[in-house]
Amino acid sequence: MSAKDPMTTEGETRLRADLETIRPLDEAAMALAAAHLDRLTKPPGSLGRLETLVIQVAGITGRPDAPVAARAIVVAAADHGVTAQGVSAYPAEVTSQMVANFVAGGAAINVLAEAAGARVVVLDVGVARPIPPVAADPVRGGRLVRARVRDGTADMTVEAAMSRDDALAAIDAGRQLVADMRAEPSGLDLVGVGEMGIGNTTAASALSAVFTGAEVEAVTGRGTGIDEAGRRHKVAVIEAAIARHRPDAADPIGVLAAIGGLEIAALVGVIVEAAIAGIPVVLDGFISTAAALVAVALQPSIAPRLVAGHRSSEPGHRIVLEHLGLAPVIDLDLRLGEASGAALAIGIVVAAIAIRDGMATFDSAGIAGRG
Amino acid sequence: MSAKDPMTTEGETRLRADLETIRPLDEAAMALAAAHLDRLTKPPGSLGRLETLVIQVAGITGRPDAPVAARAIVVAAADHGVTAQGVSAYPAEVTSQMVANFVAGGAAINVLAEAAGARVVVLDVGVARPIPPVAADPVRGGRLVRARVRDGTADMTVEAAMSRDDALAAIDAGRQLVADMRAEPSGLDLVGVGEMGIGNTTAASALSAVFTGAEVEAVTGRGTGIDEAGRRHKVAVIEAAIARHRPDAADPIGVLAAIGGLEIAALVGVIVEAAIAGIPVVLDGFISTAAALVAVALQPSIAPRLVAGHRSSEPGHRIVLEHLGLAPVIDLDLRLGEASGAALAIGIVVAAIAIRDGMATFDSAGIAGRG
Repeated sequence: MSAKDPMTTEGETRLRADLETIRPLDEAAMALAAAHLDRLTKPPGSLGRLETLVIQVAGITGRPDAPVAARAIVVAAADHGVTAQGVSAYPAEVTSQMVANFVAGGAAINVLAEAAGARVVVLDVGVARPIPPVAADPVRGGRLVRARVRDGTADMTVEAAMSRDDALAAIDAGRQLVADMRAEPSGLDLVGVGEMGIGNTTAASALSAVFTGAEVEAVTGRGTGIDEAGRRHKVAVIEAAIARHRPDAADPIGVLAAIGGLEIAALVGVIVEAAIAGIPVVLDGFISTAAALVAVALQPSIAPRLVAGHRSSEPGHRIVLEHLGLAPVIDLDLRLGEASGAALAIGIVVAAIAIRDGMATFDSAGIAGRG
Repeated sequence: MSAKDPMTTEGETRLRADLETIRPLDEAAMALAAAHLDRLTKPPGSLGRLETLVIQVAGITGRPDAPVAARAIVVAAADHGVTAQGVSAYPAEVTSQMVANFVAGGAAINVLAEAAGARVVVLDVGVARPIPPVAADPVRGGRLVRARVRDGTADMTVEAAMSRDDALAAIDAGRQLVADMRAEPSGLDLVGVGEMGIGNTTAASALSAVFTGAEVEAVTGRGTGIDEAGRRHKVAVIEAAIARHRPDAADPIGVLAAIGGLEIAALVGVIVEAAIAGIPVVLDGFISTAAALVAVALQPSIAPRLVAGHRSSEPGHRIVLEHLGLAPVIDLDLRLGEASGAALAIGIVVAAIAIRDGMATFDSAGIAGRG
């Protein structure tokens, strides 16, 4: 450790120790899965990405026959002080209103998670306003987990978005949620991650610039619908925040605290805990992939444990995915967040696992091999 | 009609008359669907291709609330005389063996169709060998429809693959299957199309070259697994067949008869009948898209009624999709056929329709609009 190493608190020390337990993918399990796929009644490799997903799941879990039955989608939610700078097309109260919508079951992620056979868990780590009371839909309503660290971040152009302790607390909230879900009777086989937070593409763009080294201009898009003038303003806001804090990519927690978001920190925690537990993580779009950037900066062995659910139409997403060495499963011009792309990709992962488990072999079906 | 017009039989005359009944997409239904999508709790257009799929389904069906509950996947199967030229990595008996596997429920398409909530119907229009008797799997086994026109095509390098009457009979078999499914109590809301036929990438490449004007070299790939020398041989075989028959793209039935396949002709029939009935068609990969090329050559109004399920790793597929103006829903390096890509894409279409039907509106959820 260098003299400037900022990991001084007990929480940071424990996090670092836990990160050291994350291993490379299990090559033996991957080889067994690949050999099994080649016995199925199809030309070798002809199911393309479905086959590599099966092999990746084996490597992550250490099991060529790992189940994916217990599926959850975590939507982390928090507000962003930087919205005071006018970076979003929507008012900040939409964060709390949409959290209520997730609970009521009326949002896109409720519909898409149901289609993917995944339950929705909404993790409030920093929604600034009270969440409107709503009746939870019994079928597709999300379960709300309250773990509010603070009422949204501060405006990163004025001060650090949050303290290191707040960032660690939000990471811990994500880790704890995964631990709790694993401890439930149904367990947890696969987790998709998404988010809600008006203003959070600003934080994601800032993180992307710092960790990939790309120009802010290249990783800043129109979010949920600002115009080109709004986008240029957003670039200037992010550049001002980075100039103020001069975040050091070698200190991922420090970067997260300076220019990140509480929901992004919570997703770092979900990703870290899932990686430790050998549970595949399906990323959503630009913001959850920014969380993955932080997690991989903390521990590079996490990268091959991630499935990039989709390629967002946010321009920075392509750059971040390339930096992480991840290829998206789907590419449908989504730019909603909420884990909508992750949910669709989970449907593909589930289909891949069904192929693994449901097809006949050449021998069992009495089919001739290659001539 | 020109003097050389070959449509002289009653069957061809009837087909042409029926094709004239296919209308452009219903713009009013599309506008209603688009307006509905903009009332849902998400930024306008933020669900990208999911939204355009909803709008396209409205245009095809003429209903902004069209159901997609009754889903079927048609796998047309037939053999190819051109396999005598050594164009495939697999022996020709695999066609009949795989048809038995579809019935038994052990093939990739059985698994993927179940995941997509679609039933599998296997249409034998020209499998050369007897189909081995198997027990049909009650859950995921395909229903076998026997409509064998002839025992596979002739070797297109020696003579026409089939007669015009045979091509029309196979088209009629596909049309009749759709008509029969529509007449059943469950009806038919959406159809995916795929195929099985050892040697059929050769026919698909030949059709693609004739209808797109591309070089045979550019639209000929390795099929299910031949090597580069095998691919070069396949190019020479296709060039020889085209040189022999000099097929005229202005006479699609003639092209199909000379260098096509019986299962491809059957899929032309499925596509045509679905287009007439206002039923969305989800294409699979290179071979079903070649069938779409023939159908669109017969009636250009069919093109916007098609959903390109996926982009195959066959190099010609990209060229054919561009020719048809279609963008694939998924791109997962599949090269299996059987409708495997169509089944995965149907899952996405179903998710899109669930979004249409399941989300709250801004008004109903009490959520603020754009600032």
